Amino acid sequence: MTEVVLGIDIGGTNTKFGFVDADGNCYESGSMPTNANEDVSAFLPRLFENVDLAIKKSGDSIKLRGIGIGVPNGNYFKGTVERPPNLKWGTVVNLSALIKKHYNIPVALTNDANAAALGEMKYGAAKGMKDFIVITLGTGLGSGIVVNGNLVYGADGFAGEIGHTLVNVNGRWCGCGRRGCLETYVSATGIKRTVYKLLADYTESSELHNYSFNELTAEMITEAGLRGDKIALEAFEYTARILGMKLADTVAHTSPEAIILFGGLVNANELIFTPTLYHMEKNMLAIYKNKVKLLPSKLMNKNAAVLGASALIWKEIEDKGL
Amino acid sequence: MTEVVLGIDIGGTNTKFGFVDADGNCYESGSMPTNANEDVSAFLPRLFENVDLAIKKSGDSIKLRGIGIGVPNGNYFKGTVERPPNLKWGTVVNLSALIKKHYNIPVALTNDANAAALGEMKYGAAKGMKDFIVITLGTGLGSGIVVNGNLVYGADGFAGEIGHTLVNVNGRWCGCGRRGCLETYVSATGIKRTVYKLLADYTESSELHNYSFNELTAEMITEAGLRGDKIALEAFEYTARILGMKLADTVAHTSPEAIILFGGLVNANELIFTPTLYHMEKNMLAIYKNKVKLLPSKLMNKNAAVLGASALIWKEIEDKGL
Repeated sequence: MTEVVLGIDIGGTNTKFGFVDADGNCYESGSMPTNANEDVSAFLPRLFENVDLAIKKSGDSIKLRGIGIGVPNGNYFKGTVERPPNLKWGTVVNLSALIKKHYNIPVALTNDANAAALGEMKYGAAKGMKDFIVITLGTGLGSGIVVNGNLVYGADGFAGEIGHTLVNVNGRWCGCGRRGCLETYVSATGIKRTVYKLLADYTESSELHNYSFNELTAEMITEAGLRGDKIALEAFEYTARILGMKLADTVAHTSPEAIILFGGLVNANELIFTPTLYHMEKNMLAIYKNKVKLLPSKLMNKNAAVLGASALIWKEIEDKGL
Repeated sequence: MTEVVLGIDIGGTNTKFGFVDADGNCYESGSMPTNANEDVSAFLPRLFENVDLAIKKSGDSIKLRGIGIGVPNGNYFKGTVERPPNLKWGTVVNLSALIKKHYNIPVALTNDANAAALGEMKYGAAKGMKDFIVITLGTGLGSGIVVNGNLVYGADGFAGEIGHTLVNVNGRWCGCGRRGCLETYVSATGIKRTVYKLLADYTESSELHNYSFNELTAEMITEAGLRGDKIALEAFEYTARILGMKLADTVAHTSPEAIILFGGLVNANELIFTPTLYHMEKNMLAIYKNKVKLLPSKLMNKNAAVLGASALIWKEIEDKGL
């Protein structure tokens, strides 16, 4: 009988789950649509049904020790989900309590980027590190900050929103209602916006002239860049300059051993890593120079979000002896 | 017999020390010129002589438990002082070992702003808090970040240099060799530079027209502001706008319960606090709004630097059972 935890990742589109042992091996797993417009009271019975089925399938081969959840606006301290931007769950849902009621084992939750950071620490690129930061580049820019081996939750459980630090007070409008947030420049959506800005500014011919905003994806920009398209290359340089500059500010806060990038843009390899490192170093105080590693995630070809959620509850079990 | 620790604050001009009990009561204390141009091998015998004399004076009334030191570029992990900007001590001095050799009791050191943060936590405005940040406004801008009850030292012991985060890539030249650092705008020196900029930009009459750069002090700007001088008032608004904007970025990292300001500029009271809070709130993500307290230090009329250094070693003694 293998001891496992259940990792659940609740996204705006899909909810994924899996049973994960302490070494990161994933056993039975599953996925279901989140149905972002339905209430949590409709969502949970569907989730329980799917999970219960997977438990049944596994039979006596696993022993379930706890449940870890990554969810937008998840509050680690309270076990609540508060005003999730992409879910119609209302103001505050005590998700942890609702799930504990059903399974009666330890439950912990946090947001997806924090879970990603714990996943990298337990199974990925941050193994053995005590001070590092994970930056997730998706629709937005998420971040999880680890200091001295522990995730920084802050006074309210909502620390680590580097995507909403300020690049330019008169800058791009952000989904959060403000202007100039880092994620409006640095994210899958941000680089799309940058391509459109560059197509407006330059006369350079580019294969990216052929796509509407809705058609264009970060993958297409990455592929164009790898083929040498000048607008795509300039978009990566523009993105990396802003990311590097803001990461230098971040280093001046917690002085991490490494910063780990996660998300599709990471597949652009040196197109993103080389200029980001250059601009980070250029903007850093002398005492920090040539110390901070900039690394790709090691969980990108795995079930990263589920692994992250599982790492959260494994850490609880280990730290608190649950 | 009272159990005390020795707190030592090594500044560019003076070195202060004092015996401090666990409640922050300061017993025998002293001060000597640092003599910034002399080597550490000349500095230390002078320090030992002064401290030994104070120990002798105290006789059997105190029991010395340990020594805490606040020093520019002090590395908590290594006990070293590395390239201190205002001391001619060379590259790396293992100050902790040299002092331990003489007194043979526990010794710990960190930089002055970190010591200030620990001082506020043990004796001052952050009593009972686990997540807060102290900003010291002096010649430069120092910061000490506390997360979950512990100071953030980072991977290398040098975390918390918020004074060197970037306001403007083409901004004011900084003593660190770069441009646009926060401390070039927000510090006693920064507000002087701002007054000079405003005197250049505006035709408004001001009592500050009467002073050379070398004559002008932050105290004079504060007093002029409190008397209603328009240039001084605008200088506070300018300073506070930049500080508030950058503090919003800082909150997005560690989400503190409070940010505590220390230094002469704090005496300007609402001239600095009201606009800083306004601009911090204006630039913060919705989830952080109306949560973070902006407070004045409670150690400013006390021997703050010595208390901070003493708090560092008290924390070591308590955490590690020394």
